[in-house]
Amino acid sequence: MSELRKDPIVSRWVIIATERDARPHHFKSSAETPSDTKSEGCPFCEGNEHMTPPEIYAVRPGGGKANGPGWLVRVIPNKYPVLRIEGDVARRGIGMCDMAEGVGAHEVIVETPRHDQRLSDLPEEHIELVLGAFRERIIELDRDDRLRYAMVFKNQGIRAGASLPHAHSQLIATPVTPITVKEELQSSKKYYQEKERCIFCDYLKQEMKAGERLVMDDEHFAVIAPFASRFPFEMWVIPKKHQSDYHKISPQELTSLSKILKMILIKLRENLENPDYNMLLHTAPLRTPRSGYWTTIEVDYHWHFEIFPRLTRVAGFEWGTGFYINPTPPERVREFLMGE
Amino acid sequence: MSELRKDPIVSRWVIIATERDARPHHFKSSAETPSDTKSEGCPFCEGNEHMTPPEIYAVRPGGGKANGPGWLVRVIPNKYPVLRIEGDVARRGIGMCDMAEGVGAHEVIVETPRHDQRLSDLPEEHIELVLGAFRERIIELDRDDRLRYAMVFKNQGIRAGASLPHAHSQLIATPVTPITVKEELQSSKKYYQEKERCIFCDYLKQEMKAGERLVMDDEHFAVIAPFASRFPFEMWVIPKKHQSDYHKISPQELTSLSKILKMILIKLRENLENPDYNMLLHTAPLRTPRSGYWTTIEVDYHWHFEIFPRLTRVAGFEWGTGFYINPTPPERVREFLMGE
Repeated sequence: MSELRKDPIVSRWVIIATERDARPHHFKSSAETPSDTKSEGCPFCEGNEHMTPPEIYAVRPGGGKANGPGWLVRVIPNKYPVLRIEGDVARRGIGMCDMAEGVGAHEVIVETPRHDQRLSDLPEEHIELVLGAFRERIIELDRDDRLRYAMVFKNQGIRAGASLPHAHSQLIATPVTPITVKEELQSSKKYYQEKERCIFCDYLKQEMKAGERLVMDDEHFAVIAPFASRFPFEMWVIPKKHQSDYHKISPQELTSLSKILKMILIKLRENLENPDYNMLLHTAPLRTPRSGYWTTIEVDYHWHFEIFPRLTRVAGFEWGTGFYINPTPPERVREFLMGE
Repeated sequence: MSELRKDPIVSRWVIIATERDARPHHFKSSAETPSDTKSEGCPFCEGNEHMTPPEIYAVRPGGGKANGPGWLVRVIPNKYPVLRIEGDVARRGIGMCDMAEGVGAHEVIVETPRHDQRLSDLPEEHIELVLGAFRERIIELDRDDRLRYAMVFKNQGIRAGASLPHAHSQLIATPVTPITVKEELQSSKKYYQEKERCIFCDYLKQEMKAGERLVMDDEHFAVIAPFASRFPFEMWVIPKKHQSDYHKISPQELTSLSKILKMILIKLRENLENPDYNMLLHTAPLRTPRSGYWTTIEVDYHWHFEIFPRLTRVAGFEWGTGFYINPTPPERVREFLMGE
């Protein structure tokens, strides 16, 4: 079982994946780029369903049996999970150090049955199914009161941390609230306490008015290159209507989000030579049955996606300081991507 | 001039290097591996001193003129600094957002005149000169009261963020205290207030006693694989004697540190196929003339180096949560590296 460990000096949690126990020779990277519709050894390809643990969720428009072909989107447990759903969250101390058992969930959202498609290649209606799968899985995991947060993320390409080339996203649910999430929650709560307004709503209003960092928008969403962008071409996709929880997204918003997302990903691909990228969903924590504690979260937090191509390397200075060095001003992103 | 920008939601500072203004086509990586003793186009090679700005510091055992050959270690301003020494630190707001001018210092410590040597190839006495250059530069920058922190770091190899292959370290001095440093300072100050002991001294004592995460040690230093290691083979080099400021290191300690450092770097190279790595110095902030504010820092903080090979990729989950996933338990590091 994995262990969650907390650094005794800074409040940083680490997952030590003891089961993997990776020895030196394990650290090699492969650079496969898919070209065939199906790959013999790929567990995410249609027809290879037996290579994965039994599925948790799938979209099969034509019907058909679980764990067989005929699906468009398929969610499975990660075969090598960093956290497992079985067991209790036993927290304990080792001298000055804290640890907890690695309880949680680690799921893979396979975005397409085809090996040669990337998320940006899929039709908008298909992307909508992927985004819908995120929603369904969060709703389901919210029922488990051992879990505090569900992080949905996508690593596209080796530089972004992907280990398999077949298009997929992941969901990791953790028994502690991650520090990065906590900082964002605390900050937005504090702002609300002072002003009785959502910090994201105010920020969005400011950026819509200023205009120079607005990359695109439609009725439901705005894409912003954030003022303090950590990475070149970092973008946040923010719903215009205030909403704390991604899983409460409306059907109209889901359709709109699919269009916006496809557009951004295509623009990145066209203008930056098909870059590897990360995409993260920032949504409110799971809170069944902790509703008492989070009394204001529905008014003070605002879900959004963060997307950043992996163009720069995070180096010593960034690790040591928490500062990021970004050579591309966010004011240039719209021009570079949209040609405007 | 670069800009320091603070995220309005989380307390994260970013340096937007507006002068670089990198367009999409700038993001290409080159993978040169040095083999010749001198490279024609390398600004860090002996004989090419005219290709860099005038030197700030150099070690010339045989004498000789500044900005000519004959040196073993040479410190120069970075030709493309992320922060510049000229100007004032004007902080201001843009709507909800904070920013400051990019005042600071960005220096390069060229570790050897030869193009084909890595830090680990140098004799111990030469490594000592490099470590001595770190000390001299921090002492000098401590006199500038606009600066709050001097971060010394080394990016070895492209995966670790190096853009030039010739062996070098860097120093970036910032006009704000970096958030990562602040967290460590706050935590050690709090521990001291409670226990009147240094948290690092206590941690070191615990780890020396437990033994399982002790990689090696000598009279002056211990090398620990930290309990909550973020990365496989992460190691901290901690002085056994309590000391808050690296630049107060004794001559005996400097000699000992050179030996220990060379040993670790060679072990990493031998056992992990010459991995790229980052090395960071964590030392107390510059504090002339802020001694009033930092009344206890000399007893509550403890300098150390952090070293980690870049074997895993930092992916979406880590970015979104601040959690790290580490597949190599720190309890296995001594065995894997030292064969014990």
